[in-house]
This record gives sequence, C-alpha cells and structure tokens, in this order.
Amino acid sequence: MNDISGLFGIQYPIVQGGMIWCSGWELAAAVSNAGGLGTIGSGSMYPDVLREQIRKCKSATVRPFAVNLPLIYPQVADHIQIILEEKVPVVITSAGNPKMYAETFKTAGCKLIHVVSSSKFAIKAQDAGCDAVVAEGFEAGGHNGREETTTLCLIPQVVDAVSIPVIAAGGIADGRSMLAAFALGAQGVQMGSRFVACEESSAHDAFKQAVIAAKEGDTHLTLKEITPVRLLNNPFADQVKMAYHSGATNDELKALLGRGRAKKGMFEGDMIEGELEIGQVSARLGHVFSAKQIIDQTMMDFKAAVQKLSL
Amino acid sequence: MNDISGLFGIQYPIVQGGMIWCSGWELAAAVSNAGGLGTIGSGSMYPDVLREQIRKCKSATVRPFAVNLPLIYPQVADHIQIILEEKVPVVITSAGNPKMYAETFKTAGCKLIHVVSSSKFAIKAQDAGCDAVVAEGFEAGGHNGREETTTLCLIPQVVDAVSIPVIAAGGIADGRSMLAAFALGAQGVQMGSRFVACEESSAHDAFKQAVIAAKEGDTHLTLKEITPVRLLNNPFADQVKMAYHSGATNDELKALLGRGRAKKGMFEGDMIEGELEIGQVSARLGHVFSAKQIIDQTMMDFKAAVQKLSL
Repeated sequence: MNDISGLFGIQYPIVQGGMIWCSGWELAAAVSNAGGLGTIGSGSMYPDVLREQIRKCKSATVRPFAVNLPLIYPQVADHIQIILEEKVPVVITSAGNPKMYAETFKTAGCKLIHVVSSSKFAIKAQDAGCDAVVAEGFEAGGHNGREETTTLCLIPQVVDAVSIPVIAAGGIADGRSMLAAFALGAQGVQMGSRFVACEESSAHDAFKQAVIAAKEGDTHLTLKEITPVRLLNNPFADQVKMAYHSGATNDELKALLGRGRAKKGMFEGDMIEGELEIGQVSARLGHVFSAKQIIDQTMMDFKAAVQKLSL
Repeated sequence: MNDISGLFGIQYPIVQGGMIWCSGWELAAAVSNAGGLGTIGSGSMYPDVLREQIRKCKSATVRPFAVNLPLIYPQVADHIQIILEEKVPVVITSAGNPKMYAETFKTAGCKLIHVVSSSKFAIKAQDAGCDAVVAEGFEAGGHNGREETTTLCLIPQVVDAVSIPVIAAGGIADGRSMLAAFALGAQGVQMGSRFVACEESSAHDAFKQAVIAAKEGDTHLTLKEITPVRLLNNPFADQVKMAYHSGATNDELKALLGRGRAKKGMFEGDMIEGELEIGQVSARLGHVFSAKQIIDQTMMDFKAAVQKLSL
C-alpha cells in the first residue's frame, strides 16, 4: 500500500478517470469493486441524474468511489450539494480553481483531488488544501491543458513542485505505462481511454469499437482557441479541421461545435456527426475488457515490469 | 550491459542526440569519453567541415561515436562518402528512408540507427536492416513527427512492433525519465536538450542560458504544414505565430523562416531573430553541466530510482 492507496482506502493506486457520457455508476462501481477508485463523471449529468447515479453506485459497492466535478459547469452548486448530502467519499475537481470549495469538502470528510496540467496549477491545488493532484499530459483524451506538456515531462515537474501525492494521467493504459509513471515519481495513475473501452462503460458500443480500432495518429488536439480537446478523427473532426483551414472565427467554431455533439458521438454512437473524445493511448487498445480484467491485468503486468527492471 | 551497450560498444545506454549547431566534435568526444554514445550532428555542416569534425573527434576519443545524418539534406552523398572513408563506427539517420543506404553502411561495418516517430516507420527501418531505432516523441526539440505521438505512448508501440532494440527520445533528461523509458521497454535513451545545455556543446552561451531558464509551456510545436519543429518561444517564434493567425501561406511561412535562422539563434546567440530548437524537457533543466557530469548523474539517479521502485 502506498500513499494514494492509503489516502483513499483503495487496494490498488489506479483511478478511473471521470469521463462525460462514459463513466456512470456501473463503471465506477465495477472499478471500485475491482480494487481501484471508480469515478462517476458528473459533467454530463443533471443534478437529479447525478443523485440517482451516486445512489446506484453506493448500492453496488461498499468500497470508496469518486465523483468528477468540472468546476466550470453551470450547475456546480447543485452538484456539490448532492455530493455532500450523499456523502461521496472522494471528489475529483477539474477545469477551475478548487480553492472556494476545498473547505466545504474537507469539513464534510470528503477527500479532494484536483486535475492539473502544469506544476503552477498543482501548487495552487496544494495551497487550496487538496489531498492529491491528478497531473494530466498532452496525450490525454478530452479537455486538455494549453501548454501541451506531455505526461513524461509533466509528472517529474509536478512531483518536484508539490508535497502531496501525484496521480499521473495521459497515455497510461497498462502495467508498463503505470510503472513508467511511478518511475517519474507518481504514486498513482488515472486511466481514462482504457476504461472507455470497458464492458461496464456507458459509452455506445460503436464508440468502444472505434476506440479499440484506433491507430497511431488517429487522435489530435483541436479547438485550442476555445477549450483544447483531444478528439478521435472522424467526419465531425474533419469539419473542425476544415473550419480552421478556412480561417473560422471562434464564434463560428462554437457554432459548429454546437450542443450535444459529445452525447451524440460517445453515448448515442453517431460516428459521423458526433464528437469523440479519446486519448492517444487508444492506439494501444485492442479489446474491450471488464473493469476487473483491466485492473487485474494492469497490476500483473506492473509487477512483471518491476521484476524485469530489477534484473 | 544491455543490448544497446553491447551493440555499440558503449558503457551506458545513453545516446547524445545529433543536433544542428550544438553537437560538434567537442560534445561528441566528451559524451563518448564519459561512457555514452556521442554524436556529431552533420545537418549543419558542409562536407569538408564534417570531415574535420570527425577527425578531431577521433583524435579526442578512442571510444565509439556516431554521426547523425539527415537524409533530406542536399549533400547527403558527400557526407556518406566521408563517413565511410573516415570509418565512423555508428551512423544515426533521420528525416528520410534509410533503405537505400543501409547495405552500404553495413558492408562497411558501420552500425546503423534510424530515428522514427511512429511504429510504421520503425518497421520500415527494421526491414531496411537497421541495427536499432531511436523512437522520438512529440515533446522532443527540433524536427518532429506529424502524428504528435508522445514518448509515453510511442515507446511501447514501437517496442511491440519491432524486434530490434529501441532507444527512447523526447522528454528524457535524467535518471527518472531514463527509468520511465526502460519501464516502457526501451533499451536505451537519447537525450538532446540536456546536451544542448552542456559545457562541451557548441551552442552559443546565450542559447544555453535561455534553455536552462525555460519554464513549462515555453516551447511549442509549429510550422506543421512545412516541417513540424519544436521551438523555444522568442520574438521570432512570435512572428511565426502571428503569420499563422493572419493566414499566411506555406510560401509566406517559408519566406519568413528564410535561411540561416537556426544558426543565427543557436550558434550565434541571437535570441530575438534566431530560430531556437529545443524540447519541452528544457523546463526541467536548471544548470549547464559537463557531459561527464550529465552522464554520471543520470546513471546515479537511474540506479536510485530503480532501488526506490523495488522497495
């Protein structure tokens, strides 16, 4: 057991990333039951849906789980109220400053992790009172930092900058990449894309199949002027590229993005018109597994990789 | 000793990247004398200069060293002739297909390494008869792959795709990042930026100082439509950014880039008008060290990191 496992009361220092439209209670409970920290992604949920998801998760696992809370979402106050009422053990905040909420969570006995993309934000998170940070590199799927620092460069910098435990994210999908993160000084890993292509994920099966079919170079970071996001290449992503090439304004890009694109792609399975958020590491995924298979295999490969290095 | 050390007859599996304007014979000989594989970067040299550099290197070290050979350069045939005549022990080709030259080098007893940015190119290099590949990620300085795959994602993919040894490059500057590369299956590392900020590097001191002063987010990958290159932010890089924002054509970008920009910046120390090629990992460098200090410290930290992981 290391600091991350002890801090959150989990068996293995593996956090499942909270992902819109992919990580409901089934995935979160399955990951927690398998010994990791499962996470409900609240970013795609109305408050009443979030409450229902938390209750279902609690009835499906007695182990700790987390709710991911993007702080820029309009209904964040309602979400926080529900998280506190439902006594969620761990909250993972992202996309904003956790400072104004940290005291509330800590008073309620809720552990707080914040997602950062730079050591500057990691220091801010530590100063705000966070228990740990997730440091997420350029290769990660979904929304992403503007500085484009990769996980390999980011983790040692964050580890050196803060004294709280660091959980590495971006490009991690198996035991080898987990060991690489630990070599850099991380004490835990967060895996997102790997858990999209998971039996218990709420992603549409068409999206899961597209994820495991992805090859090197099949994702790219785009919409940097609005909110940087890593997408799987598809006709919608091509439309965005063409808009850039024709010199589209930010307003035109926003109009193209529209509303509901992510739901359409990831949840409803529209591989043409939908927005498909996924990490570079999708190129390394070949099968859809259960959460338990993913965690067991990761730990087995991690131990084998440690042995190999110690020769 | 591992495969890479045995293959090239070196003490430590650390390759110094060949870098235009920064890696002349002084750096190459110093790295080889310290137990790594020093590399003369021929990309910025006329043939007669390359011959002189090789001869000086041979007189300064009895150990193996390499010449980096960008295959797209106009005088590549002259360079190859000189490399063969001077019996250079190792050639590291980049920016092109090594297939048409592999037989020539192998017949002459010269070991051949090719630099790749994808597993597709790694397989081609293996099929061409290369002894090893350098797999270089998005975070690396200088010219870079179009697919933007980061070192953390790239290395396991390349390792799984080929049976020849893989040397990891991009984001590696110390023992921790070297261990991370080994965890991913690499058998050696190549460090570029770390050796720019090195006493024996031929980079201008103003550039060395700018490199060790760099912070997170101070480099970015640009000129993707021409040849992707990672630059340190400076007024010249700002000009390139502004050209993009105003919708410059490729010809206009090429005209802005002009000739001699890299020499002006990296070798002559013009921090305003010069092109400054460097990797993201520059943000992690705080001092200029000798080549021997860099290699000794890297190996010491590597062993300490292995011990820490085995606990």
